[in-house]
Amino acid sequence: MSIDVQKVLGQELAEMPFEWKERDIILYALGLGVGVGEVPTSENVLRYTYENQLKAIPTYGVVPAFPALTGVLSVPGFEINPMMILHGEQTTEVLCKEVPTRADTLTSAKVTGIFDKGKGALVTLEAITKVKGGEDLFRNEFGIFVRGEGGFGGPSGPAPGNEAPAREPDAVREYPTMPHQAVLYRLSGDYNPLHIDPQFAAFGGFDRPILHGLCTYGNVARAVIDEYTDGDPTKFRSIKVRFSAPVMPGETIVVKMWKESATDILCEASVKERQLAVVKNARVTLR
Amino acid sequence: MSIDVQKVLGQELAEMPFEWKERDIILYALGLGVGVGEVPTSENVLRYTYENQLKAIPTYGVVPAFPALTGVLSVPGFEINPMMILHGEQTTEVLCKEVPTRADTLTSAKVTGIFDKGKGALVTLEAITKVKGGEDLFRNEFGIFVRGEGGFGGPSGPAPGNEAPAREPDAVREYPTMPHQAVLYRLSGDYNPLHIDPQFAAFGGFDRPILHGLCTYGNVARAVIDEYTDGDPTKFRSIKVRFSAPVMPGETIVVKMWKESATDILCEASVKERQLAVVKNARVTLR
Repeated sequence: MSIDVQKVLGQELAEMPFEWKERDIILYALGLGVGVGEVPTSENVLRYTYENQLKAIPTYGVVPAFPALTGVLSVPGFEINPMMILHGEQTTEVLCKEVPTRADTLTSAKVTGIFDKGKGALVTLEAITKVKGGEDLFRNEFGIFVRGEGGFGGPSGPAPGNEAPAREPDAVREYPTMPHQAVLYRLSGDYNPLHIDPQFAAFGGFDRPILHGLCTYGNVARAVIDEYTDGDPTKFRSIKVRFSAPVMPGETIVVKMWKESATDILCEASVKERQLAVVKNARVTLR
Repeated sequence: MSIDVQKVLGQELAEMPFEWKERDIILYALGLGVGVGEVPTSENVLRYTYENQLKAIPTYGVVPAFPALTGVLSVPGFEINPMMILHGEQTTEVLCKEVPTRADTLTSAKVTGIFDKGKGALVTLEAITKVKGGEDLFRNEFGIFVRGEGGFGGPSGPAPGNEAPAREPDAVREYPTMPHQAVLYRLSGDYNPLHIDPQFAAFGGFDRPILHGLCTYGNVARAVIDEYTDGDPTKFRSIKVRFSAPVMPGETIVVKMWKESATDILCEASVKERQLAVVKNARVTLR
């Protein structure tokens, strides 16, 4: 097992098609936990689940780019054990005016960095998703942490930045999840068995299947939209986070927010039941 | 508003295509409430939600036939207010050996009966679903109750039959639902706003959106499979029920079962919170 930095860095991945419709947008919202512990007829639920007034939670933008991420596993020179991969960092930027609730897209991606983090390697990929023959929709940056592949003597990469201020947060929102939340989130395209199969979870070093980092991710975006835009997801521009620990399905995600300016919100997320930080160094920007 | 019995009876509906994949099978199970109040890593959940060992809950057979049902609204002579429709009765028979977890199908349907029930008309449709150019998969019979369209002097139709015995049930199973269960069940193809929109629910005479009868339906089948087949859905042959009252999302469905023979189980379902019967005259047959 090793990563051939010379070969892998800069490598372009095969362009991946992805199509979605309203049903997928609704399913994504339910996968994040929309509706759990909420009044089902409230605007907070209907906005994201009822096709007559549907808005996409803008972190949906990571979903069409996800197949590109799996493509990296077949890049020549990238010889690693997929069970050792963790989602380290993620950025999603909305390039269009409003996330469409149906679209037919293509995503191109390339390997932009390979960093030596000691205990592992951080591999970064940039992916651009655009409507087939049309406008750009999303820019994603995936940061994949490959456990056990560090120590090769490369650069350690930039510091994550976006440190939360020392003061108490300006706002806090809580989002409960269901014990089978990961089973539902999987249907948005990340079928890694780590999130459903106890045996795979054990291989990965966990005592039970863990929730997708991207499920927590969507809830960070949701918190900022709920708190600072009066529930208008079209005001969302971008999100950048670092995942520091996994959430277990059924736990409640607590999102702490610090308002840096009218458009910039620094965030951290933790798990209520274990008082453990799960997302750090996070920034959401608004329009 | 009226039903022209001469014109409508025997009318064949346009053939409707329907395709499904594993993701749809999993989504259907989650829509019924699989996972709610269960251990997510138990066989009872994984069997219906994990693509590596996936089995369809066999009442999925009603899903591909559902578009045919909506086709009846455009039959000449069938001039009724869609808000006055309730799901009255339903039969699903599995004609194949095992419900496929992916298929590309066609459903043909025709109006087989129009009965005068006094307070309304009961319109029955038979639908046959088959693989495109291949084997028959399902026979469905839909019984649509149209409130306010009775009293036209037609036959009242056969008695529903399948009366539950007077003795205590031989087995009872409980299936909790989530307060937003209907929002999830809708994604299996019945987007009637009655199940999500408070305003439509009010038009229909309900103080909040009601759960789909077909969600309860799937749980009746699930109960018999859990109780009498050791969790093997391929042993299921058919189900026939009458819906007697709506379930509210978030309520617990209690299924009572009386074993008539090794292959025939009579059932009733009620809502735990209101001690109200919601499904009556039900029979599930096994192979």
